[in-house]
Amino acid sequence: MYKLYGVKSWGSLAPQCVLAELGIAHEMIWLTPEERRGAYRQVNPLGYVPTLVLADGRLVFESSAIVAHLTDTTASDLAPRPGTPDHAVYLAWLTWMNAEIYSTMNAAEFLEDKDNAIGDAATRKSLGEAVRAKVDALFDIVERRLGETGGFMLGPNISAADIYLMMVTLWARPNRAALYARCPNIARVVAAVNARPAVARVLAENGVA
Amino acid sequence: MYKLYGVKSWGSLAPQCVLAELGIAHEMIWLTPEERRGAYRQVNPLGYVPTLVLADGRLVFESSAIVAHLTDTTASDLAPRPGTPDHAVYLAWLTWMNAEIYSTMNAAEFLEDKDNAIGDAATRKSLGEAVRAKVDALFDIVERRLGETGGFMLGPNISAADIYLMMVTLWARPNRAALYARCPNIARVVAAVNARPAVARVLAENGVA
Repeated sequence: MYKLYGVKSWGSLAPQCVLAELGIAHEMIWLTPEERRGAYRQVNPLGYVPTLVLADGRLVFESSAIVAHLTDTTASDLAPRPGTPDHAVYLAWLTWMNAEIYSTMNAAEFLEDKDNAIGDAATRKSLGEAVRAKVDALFDIVERRLGETGGFMLGPNISAADIYLMMVTLWARPNRAALYARCPNIARVVAAVNARPAVARVLAENGVA
Repeated sequence: MYKLYGVKSWGSLAPQCVLAELGIAHEMIWLTPEERRGAYRQVNPLGYVPTLVLADGRLVFESSAIVAHLTDTTASDLAPRPGTPDHAVYLAWLTWMNAEIYSTMNAAEFLEDKDNAIGDAATRKSLGEAVRAKVDALFDIVERRLGETGGFMLGPNISAADIYLMMVTLWARPNRAALYARCPNIARVVAAVNARPAVARVLAENGVA
């Protein structure tokens, strides 16, 4: 059975939603941010959250890789089958949201973190703002994509890529409401994702109202 | 037939190697960095390199997604089959190298780029150095991983993840020789990758000596 290590409302949220959607048996193990920096290093020396632990004990990290693995193992309407052209497009957008949106948000937090001692407070603030502007530009790409498909990330049907999108919108600055007001297509897709009963249960467990 | 848009020695290198290794028919289309910022926007409005164009004209981006798609379509000894636990570990490391090493290198270039007008030259330099230190720490993770497997990224056998690793080492600062001197396991794996005839041909075409 899978174990999923997570922190509430962090990058474990999309993998947890996909486990719930696909009805895959798993044990959810919650960490506080403090535990993540401490005893959790015994489990994953890299400290990454989320980490999916396979039945054989091996570790799978990077949230988009976990999501793609789960949908690869289990046929459903949430993702195309591996090796197909549709799956290539799915993997492209899923990986892009991880490597571009999520990583750039992490970069902004790294720059804003006073413990990283990069320049003075004013410099860190202006740097954080520059990187946040890049995040906004990435969400603009998603907004245009959703306008082009007229539906969801992959086309007319909802997929795990839309669940992943919903997750990264939770971390938008100054807040997600501002993002949804600026990007109506993203708001529409997130509303459709959040209306799914399995997703709604996971959001509640993560304390996301 | 696939088309792969690339710039010599950029992120198209690993996908090109995997196409060559798997003997997949494709058209390689070279761009200069200037063309990438210009007319290429007609092909991919996002300007991303690499971009794989599917037979139906759809675009696949993110180098790790292209590599995973190619190995998913074609059974070989270069990657585990999709949906297996081995494939989950493959996808984790491949995605991690893209989202962590490659993205952090891009972040350093973004910070160092005078056109982004972040602070003065001295601030940009110190910021670039801070992010480069993070890249070094990521390569240290790979070095430890290779020490643990005693072989390659996934274990005793070489895989497309090692080809991807070779690619990102090309961009190390101050240069790849310094990285290989510091990280003997990485040097060993890169030497094994580069000794493969298909890889050697692609490296020569990319002007990598």
